[in-house]
Amino acid sequence: MTQENETRKHPKLVAIQQVSEGWINKYVLTYEKDNGETFTYESVSRKNLEDYTEQLERNAAGLPPKPDAVCIYPILPNDSILLIREFRYPLNAWCVALPAGLIDEGESLEETINRELMEETGCRLRTDLEGPAYQLLPQSGFSSTGMGEENVQVAIAYVEKAGEPQLGENELIETFELSRDEIGRFLDTNTSPIGTRCQLLLEASRRLQVLRKRLALAQNPLTKNDFA
Amino acid sequence: MTQENETRKHPKLVAIQQVSEGWINKYVLTYEKDNGETFTYESVSRKNLEDYTEQLERNAAGLPPKPDAVCIYPILPNDSILLIREFRYPLNAWCVALPAGLIDEGESLEETINRELMEETGCRLRTDLEGPAYQLLPQSGFSSTGMGEENVQVAIAYVEKAGEPQLGENELIETFELSRDEIGRFLDTNTSPIGTRCQLLLEASRRLQVLRKRLALAQNPLTKNDFA
Repeated sequence: MTQENETRKHPKLVAIQQVSEGWINKYVLTYEKDNGETFTYESVSRKNLEDYTEQLERNAAGLPPKPDAVCIYPILPNDSILLIREFRYPLNAWCVALPAGLIDEGESLEETINRELMEETGCRLRTDLEGPAYQLLPQSGFSSTGMGEENVQVAIAYVEKAGEPQLGENELIETFELSRDEIGRFLDTNTSPIGTRCQLLLEASRRLQVLRKRLALAQNPLTKNDFA
Repeated sequence: MTQENETRKHPKLVAIQQVSEGWINKYVLTYEKDNGETFTYESVSRKNLEDYTEQLERNAAGLPPKPDAVCIYPILPNDSILLIREFRYPLNAWCVALPAGLIDEGESLEETINRELMEETGCRLRTDLEGPAYQLLPQSGFSSTGMGEENVQVAIAYVEKAGEPQLGENELIETFELSRDEIGRFLDTNTSPIGTRCQLLLEASRRLQVLRKRLALAQNPLTKNDFA
């Protein structure tokens, strides 16, 4: 296994030019090679020039990134997975996805998880469990590293119904549930656009479910008495 | 399970304005609500105005999206996973990721898989297997539906070494391998930025590996003779 924390050598970032402002900012980055030649690369970010510059410096220094958003894999008390269908304007389509949202300034991850769950689904983290009702993956993951630096922290969470969704203006979201045994058929027959994190976490559940069943069978083998 | 292919009602897309051109195009979409009010939403795409417009019409009609790119989860003959570290300009950092790349015009998915494997890692799909050396997930997944329509087809692939990587100019990529038993420790200790698909597929492998081991134990229980 190659596991290194040192910073590898790479072209030097010598300029960051903002070419479009808005909810999505677009930048042109200029890099300089060892031979002195420069070249440019486009990127997008929700961060403004100052924050994006700071982030790129942090990244180059090898500092772990702070997640921009959380994505929640919500498991209901009946062991079903809680999913959403959300109208996504950049796609002009309803998409299958997991509850997710940007982390507000000063908010803890747990606060973001509970707020987004409540806003989008009317659920919250379960309050009847001993210990935490959620598990964070060890780090956040970058959505599309060829285009930008959006990174999202996945949380696997045990949730319960607590009220009605509180959708923002222009937010179009429906919830639905999938039992563990329905996940495979859903993935094989779904034709709606689906988010990457939702798709891959459901695929993991499908495959784990197959092994869980085989394990249960192996641990409870039929005996001669089963045919008696 | 709610599984429907019909198109749900949603605000009507009435205008698409391109506000920035380049390798990344930025758009402002204008939607009209039932009450006649309009509002705008920003998005980004690698597609030009004509192709993006066509894609949004296809999406609204419920037609399944054509993937923009493939992402390969490569399994080596020794059952290790083949990963890459790639310098990602939009992040100013080396990232842990899976071999991946855009599908060229007229290229089949299998051709893209073999081309990207060869370019980035010097590997190709195994040629010693009966039947296909790769499995496609049932559909492609959208990377970041709040920002754009990039969608990526994941392929789980059995690969073999076939030559040396053929990196493009300004492409900085190293390969490394993880055995199944190293995946958990890698995920728990890695501090480099990591791509979402890579992270979630490795997490799935980690959890499947735990169950596989338990299954092997259950199917091969210790007997009194083991202590003889």
